[in-house]
Amino acid sequence: MTNEEQNLGLTSGRIETLTDGVFAIAMTLLVLNLGLPQLEEGLSPVGLHTLLLSQGQKFFNYALSFILLAVFWMIHHQQFHHIKRTDRVHIWINIFILMFVALIPFSTSLIGDYSNDWMAEFFFGGNMFLVGVLFELNWTYATRIKPLADNISAKYMVVAMRRGLVTPLVALAAMILALLRLPSTHIYLLIPIILTLPLFRRG
Amino acid sequence: MTNEEQNLGLTSGRIETLTDGVFAIAMTLLVLNLGLPQLEEGLSPVGLHTLLLSQGQKFFNYALSFILLAVFWMIHHQQFHHIKRTDRVHIWINIFILMFVALIPFSTSLIGDYSNDWMAEFFFGGNMFLVGVLFELNWTYATRIKPLADNISAKYMVVAMRRGLVTPLVALAAMILALLRLPSTHIYLLIPIILTLPLFRRG
Amino acid sequence: MTNEEQNLGLTSGRIETLTDGVFAIAMTLLVLNLGLPQLEEGLSPVGLHTLLLSQGQKFFNYALSFILLAVFWMIHHQQFHHIKRTDRVHIWINIFILMFVALIPFSTSLIGDYSNDWMAEFFFGGNMFLVGVLFELNWTYATRIKPLADNISAKYMVVAMRRGLVTPLVALAAMILALLRLPSTHIYLLIPIILTLPLFRRG
Amino acid sequence: MTNEEQNLGLTSGRIETLTDGVFAIAMTLLVLNLGLPQLEEGLSPVGLHTLLLSQGQKFFNYALSFILLAVFWMIHHQQFHHIKRTDRVHIWINIFILMFVALIPFSTSLIGDYSNDWMAEFFFGGNMFLVGVLFELNWTYATRIKPLADNISAKYMVVAMRRGLVTPLVALAAMILALLRLPSTHIYLLIPIILTLPLFRRG
Repeated sequence: MTNEEQNLGLTSGRIETLTDGVFAIAMTLLVLNLGLPQLEEGLSPVGLHTLLLSQGQKFFNYALSFILLAVFWMIHHQQFHHIKRTDRVHIWINIFILMFVALIPFSTSLIGDYSNDWMAEFFFGGNMFLVGVLFELNWTYATRIKPLADNISAKYMVVAMRRGLVTPLVALAAMILALLRLPSTHIYLLIPIILTLPLFRRG
Repeated sequence: MTNEEQNLGLTSGRIETLTDGVFAIAMTLLVLNLGLPQLEEGLSPVGLHTLLLSQGQKFFNYALSFILLAVFWMIHHQQFHHIKRTDRVHIWINIFILMFVALIPFSTSLIGDYSNDWMAEFFFGGNMFLVGVLFELNWTYATRIKPLADNISAKYMVVAMRRGLVTPLVALAAMILALLRLPSTHIYLLIPIILTLPLFRRG
Repeated sequence: MTNEEQNLGLTSGRIETLTDGVFAIAMTLLVLNLGLPQLEEGLSPVGLHTLLLSQGQKFFNYALSFILLAVFWMIHHQQFHHIKRTDRVHIWINIFILMFVALIPFSTSLIGDYSNDWMAEFFFGGNMFLVGVLFELNWTYATRIKPLADNISAKYMVVAMRRGLVTPLVALAAMILALLRLPSTHIYLLIPIILTLPLFRRG
Repeated sequence: MTNEEQNLGLTSGRIETLTDGVFAIAMTLLVLNLGLPQLEEGLSPVGLHTLLLSQGQKFFNYALSFILLAVFWMIHHQQFHHIKRTDRVHIWINIFILMFVALIPFSTSLIGDYSNDWMAEFFFGGNMFLVGVLFELNWTYATRIKPLADNISAKYMVVAMRRGLVTPLVALAAMILALLRLPSTHIYLLIPIILTLPLFRRG
């Protein structure tokens, strides 16, 4: 343990525990966005069948945000598999990551409730962009600025950087689409696909 | 650790931590479905006693979903007791498991709020069916397709497959009952009973 | 590990993880009951000061349920400090414990929202009684019926039984007070006090 | 393990697990305060853009409370890095810490919903003050009253005390500003800055 870590009393393991908790809760809170519209006069004229179909977009959003959170969670564990120490700056980077991860259920509610407003998809994209950039910053800091990670080959470091760029770049593309008033949410499904390409897997 | 696992930086232990979190939260969020109907004029004419009795079905649904989540949680730990490694496909199977586990509080709210609509019970059954099938896929993948598990006798593998079939088959029966406009929720109580039969216990 | 445990793939440690999660979430969800009454015309005539004072009972209920959850959490860890193995029956006892622990935020909302109805306090008392009784059953099962615990002196076993009786007996007294239309919630504050008496501490 | 700990069956490690859970949930529940005002007639005349800008204060509050929770979580781990044992009094101090930590999402909702009422900021300040004081009490108890911590130099003990005073003193200043009807929330941003000063870092 480094001197500073000893003063902080915080190991990288403790950050992992808090992070797992925030991810599990953010994933599960997404379900609160699925509430059906309250009908005043009862259901007889419509039927739950029609009601559920009318909420198809919200189910897509639920799956989308769940998958994006899972992708971020995997990036987190890939990074912390190698990061063995921590310091003050590194902890704050991770707190800001968690702050924007915990915001994802809110961003998801926006694209569900304001689906006809470009600002909702722009905000959602901005949220994903920031989480992605902060993860990239986390990796750069821990491998290049301060030696918090061990046993990383130069090749692995580059592949991990490349993997980390996928989400913020796709999110940036989605933000541009939103600015142009074009539908942008389906583009995120490219992320898990791109990440399985050989270029992003070898280390 | 396998080469791919090292690249992923994800061990089967990390999936267990996230899964325990999602299960604990899904179980505890079920309680939010128990909200009583808001009375505009105060309670004098009715009384909480009558109000609580009128919500008997919701209390049953709470207990039912809690028990089903507990059954799934046990299946998860039975499987991961043997699964020692992970890979990309295996992780995604588990993320889809969690996605449908986190959906259970929503499905439970449907059978409470739309108890006179067959679609609610059909949706609930579909949710349980998918979780059950994904767990069966998880076990098949980890024991037959990729050797992610150790020390499993052929006999145990078969019993575990058989145990895993109980929930999706009962859920399928419940979905058929719902399609026939017959009450379907009590049938799930068969699951814990069937799982204690000798046929489903020996390994 | 026993044969049955191996089949179940569940250790007592896994139950502890799920339990810690459910307790942490139930404790934190209590805060959702503190929502202030929505004022239609804005706050000018009343002021938040008056509004908060009018909610004094809800703050008391929050603290009360938090303390009771903490007492139950301590009982859980006292028991699992000695319980080293598990079996099918033992797991189900613990799932029913969690089911009624997760119900506590709902029971707490009842005594806040229906404070003038005896049924609310009776229901709250019944919730606490059941959790207490199930913990006592858990201890009896693990120490007398199946040998799931190690290294317990006869003296410790008796003190632990005695400790476990405090909550259900106080809850029973509260239920009787509620039936007699007498205020019952302050009586629970006896529990932490009784548990510090020498009679309930030596083992 | 001490005799009393053995009777309690609670180690300092178990308190850390529960604490990590409560912190992760409190951090993630903050997002529920970001709900946008429901518009009755649809969004056409306003636009989400304007709506989000009007909620700027709530986004600031979200970030503020998230950062304060992170500061408290770090203080917790700094303290428990050294605290190796526990006893009855120590556990209760920690339960009261968690009770006021879990209250933070409510206090945060007050400064969002009643931003023109001084009482909201006073209450928020009081919440932070109490958490800070209880952490200081926790440290004093574990290092001076009962020897629950190991290997602490006299110098480190003093620096840790000094660090622990920052939050309650800043919260006290914010409460006084609120009493004087002056804006008080920005002052909390001094906390992470002060904690990086050399005077508060060496041990």
